[in-house]
Amino acid sequence: MTAIKNILFIMADQLRWDYLSCYGHPHLHTPHIDRLAARGVRFDRAYVQSPVCGPSRASCYTGRTVFSHGATWNRVPLPVGELTLGDYLRPLGVRTAVVGKTHMVPDREGMTRLGLDSTSELGLRIGQPGFDPYERDDGLHPNPLLRRKGGSLAYNDWLRAQGYDGENPWNDYANAAEGPDGEILSGWLLKHSNLMARVKEEHSETAYMTMRAREFIEESGDTPWLCHLSYIKPHWPYIAPAPYHDMYGPESFLPVKRSEEERQDTHPVQAAFMNMEVGRVFSADGTRETVLPAYMGLIKQIDDHLGRLFAWLEETGRDRETMIVLTSDHGDYMGDHWMGEKELFHEQSVRVPLIVFDPRPEADATRGTACDALVEAIDLVPTFLEATGAPPVDHRLEGRSLMPLLRGEAPQDWRDAVFSEIDYAFYAARETLGIDVKDARGYMIRTDRWKYVYFRKFPPQLFDLLNDPDEFTDLGRHPDYEAVRRDMSDRLMDRLTGRRNRVTMTDEEVIALRRDESDSGIMIGKWG
Amino acid sequence: MTAIKNILFIMADQLRWDYLSCYGHPHLHTPHIDRLAARGVRFDRAYVQSPVCGPSRASCYTGRTVFSHGATWNRVPLPVGELTLGDYLRPLGVRTAVVGKTHMVPDREGMTRLGLDSTSELGLRIGQPGFDPYERDDGLHPNPLLRRKGGSLAYNDWLRAQGYDGENPWNDYANAAEGPDGEILSGWLLKHSNLMARVKEEHSETAYMTMRAREFIEESGDTPWLCHLSYIKPHWPYIAPAPYHDMYGPESFLPVKRSEEERQDTHPVQAAFMNMEVGRVFSADGTRETVLPAYMGLIKQIDDHLGRLFAWLEETGRDRETMIVLTSDHGDYMGDHWMGEKELFHEQSVRVPLIVFDPRPEADATRGTACDALVEAIDLVPTFLEATGAPPVDHRLEGRSLMPLLRGEAPQDWRDAVFSEIDYAFYAARETLGIDVKDARGYMIRTDRWKYVYFRKFPPQLFDLLNDPDEFTDLGRHPDYEAVRRDMSDRLMDRLTGRRNRVTMTDEEVIALRRDESDSGIMIGKWG
Repeated sequence: MTAIKNILFIMADQLRWDYLSCYGHPHLHTPHIDRLAARGVRFDRAYVQSPVCGPSRASCYTGRTVFSHGATWNRVPLPVGELTLGDYLRPLGVRTAVVGKTHMVPDREGMTRLGLDSTSELGLRIGQPGFDPYERDDGLHPNPLLRRKGGSLAYNDWLRAQGYDGENPWNDYANAAEGPDGEILSGWLLKHSNLMARVKEEHSETAYMTMRAREFIEESGDTPWLCHLSYIKPHWPYIAPAPYHDMYGPESFLPVKRSEEERQDTHPVQAAFMNMEVGRVFSADGTRETVLPAYMGLIKQIDDHLGRLFAWLEETGRDRETMIVLTSDHGDYMGDHWMGEKELFHEQSVRVPLIVFDPRPEADATRGTACDALVEAIDLVPTFLEATGAPPVDHRLEGRSLMPLLRGEAPQDWRDAVFSEIDYAFYAARETLGIDVKDARGYMIRTDRWKYVYFRKFPPQLFDLLNDPDEFTDLGRHPDYEAVRRDMSDRLMDRLTGRRNRVTMTDEEVIALRRDESDSGIMIGKWG
Repeated sequence: MTAIKNILFIMADQLRWDYLSCYGHPHLHTPHIDRLAARGVRFDRAYVQSPVCGPSRASCYTGRTVFSHGATWNRVPLPVGELTLGDYLRPLGVRTAVVGKTHMVPDREGMTRLGLDSTSELGLRIGQPGFDPYERDDGLHPNPLLRRKGGSLAYNDWLRAQGYDGENPWNDYANAAEGPDGEILSGWLLKHSNLMARVKEEHSETAYMTMRAREFIEESGDTPWLCHLSYIKPHWPYIAPAPYHDMYGPESFLPVKRSEEERQDTHPVQAAFMNMEVGRVFSADGTRETVLPAYMGLIKQIDDHLGRLFAWLEETGRDRETMIVLTSDHGDYMGDHWMGEKELFHEQSVRVPLIVFDPRPEADATRGTACDALVEAIDLVPTFLEATGAPPVDHRLEGRSLMPLLRGEAPQDWRDAVFSEIDYAFYAARETLGIDVKDARGYMIRTDRWKYVYFRKFPPQLFDLLNDPDEFTDLGRHPDYEAVRRDMSDRLMDRLTGRRNRVTMTDEEVIALRRDESDSGIMIGKWG
């Protein structure tokens, strides 16, 4: 099988699996992404390793669970000992870049301890994380945070060159609307979400990042590349430029999924999250009606830009040598389950779209098909390594290459459960629950039928996805389901004990060491 | 409480918990170690994190389980991101050294990736691991291995200076006996174990390492120090110099602990280990009779040298400012349970002596007492940090300071289960069982009454330590004990999910980040 030359790894932020027309949304038409699905494989049961930006992304880059890589939340540094996609592909001569968001911070303490200058080429690269520095932008630039970071932001410089003035045009234009008297209305406030952003569409973040991705690809020339085009949207602040701000009204919304049952005898952790401000606000009348138009418009906008990018790749012939992957780092409750944001393990939060287009003839058999195998975000790195012909790294990587599925094979030993987890020490919910920072952990395991969540210090949650696909009925404490919970607990144990901790020695080296030991003159248990 | 100035951290290799007179051995008198116990606290239920040298030691140095640090076996490099005792104590101005064995190899691949020169001061230190380079000697120097390493060995140089000749005096004198016709009989062969080593006692490894520890301590002058005096013995090769080679005969042996029941319907993993050469040889008549005299003599010799070292510390007044700890990295089956060596989780293998002498008045109340709290090797690093006044590092360290126990307190929330594990991919047993390298893992959890071992791909083991203290009856598949196994499995789950993976951010920083996030201008879920 010929190696893939380039990889376009597109991630939208906070994009629910069911907000694309190829995944069944009846009103939000995303024809360009749909066409990608028609040319590739649509994975219908793809899960993130943690329903939060930073840890989820770190798993996409390292190919390891959060349990293993340890960057358990946004701004928790990825330990300097972890390797990423960039580290794996660079030896092959692949130029790798992130264009947009990673939400990752470097392990400065670890770097200092190892004498690593964070301003050196290597030091800078570690902070990207592992990608070659190009156009990183985490997309959240309120004035206090921007000032704390020294005020520098490439997107702001560009906006100024387009005629947007001020210290922080991101804040004043991209993330703002205008009131009837010309006053600036902040995009941070949900009540403004259905207003038109002050930035022109062609100057918005989605347009800018798409342009920068194209520039990176063009600059790469004949050099193989991996472009991680990591859109900041449709993540909050929820505000869209015209014409995307008012394309969708209530008639085009998916119905809200929440039940009164969920408010009775609620699991303590879920109750604490439902009770956070974002949960209460998204459960209130009017919030979905105001926010969903922006959320859907931002998705529509991404689809339009991707359409242009895909067309350009085709025009230039690059599509024939480029694998294209589109996914998200997690979903968005949008008021479902009386929740806002993400963090917990309902499908709205933990399940994401995943489309993989492989241009090679070997993938012809699966074009336009859907795959319902249980796949995880950690499968991306092994997929990319296999696609580009890089050696496998299965003593470190915890996922599995999707390549057999892309060729239409159905491996008998494919996983029968997916895993995700949360470190919720960083939320008001932990304080409400009054538990120690170290105990604010939840671990999900989901099979074809069941979803089980183990919480430290609390009972588990259990949902029967066959009879309760909307996950309204928590069977975590129901006496009839003890055997199911036990089985799920055993699966979780298998998953945890299978963690790849021996990262410094390959399996082949283990076997060789045993042979080597017997050649070394060391004799154990020899009588004579 | 005044900080401790110095720490003498003594480790004997492969020393069973019950082969010291203070732990009840009726014939092997170890008066100097006993006196240490009389001045300190004897921990009667101390467990190693893995019953194998390398991983066990790495846990003693990092304060982390093998599950977390990843150096799962001898010669598996400790990942460059892991911190050790040296890293923690160096900022306090403490000089740290290993004198003797660590069995640890540096993570050269990780160092190379991070641009770290392995011959630089920092690079050398990482290879020690984390200690200042001084007198590392892993104690196993058969000719092929020594040649492969370039032939250099400080102990050999010293032996030559004492008049022992040849390329490898370790091999020809320290690890050899002489036959009736002057032929050299290798100490590698168990049938020679009861012969007199060709080296003089005062030139043997135990004498040499004790001398080197004393030199390190003297050279340190007024500088605070941690000396990890890490004896190579009584680990194999089992051969002792006169007069220690024939002090003990069968009348002084502990009776062998094995039962015919263990050979019926044996757990597959235990059966595979019993069937390895070392298990078969130690189960054969004559082996214990030949090996135990050397094993016991080597322990007696260590006790004598420690007596002289302790006396010198007292003469020089150093004992008043020095914490002294004596322990081992694991035990030795010595034919018990039809096994040789260690690796599995019977008490003979996984339980070790642990004596802690704290010179400060606050510890007066506990002098000469025994403590039956369940303690683990990972408790040593936090103990050393608290003793020296170093800040706690509880986002990384997985153990708990023993200091309250040394002061006679009985913390209500002390752990009620200890944990240990094995990566047995490196043994013939794995091949016999025909399982994948990745699945050759076992995890033990032991409470006051029960010991449970979870094996990947195999049923668990369960022993009732109350009714079966010798661990002859494996209840792992007995239908009456399902509830006990479930409880133990839950405890194991609690232990695994409590692993410290967020090593790059302290708990205090987590809490501060939450506050900081709200000052940054980022607003989540605000309506207006």
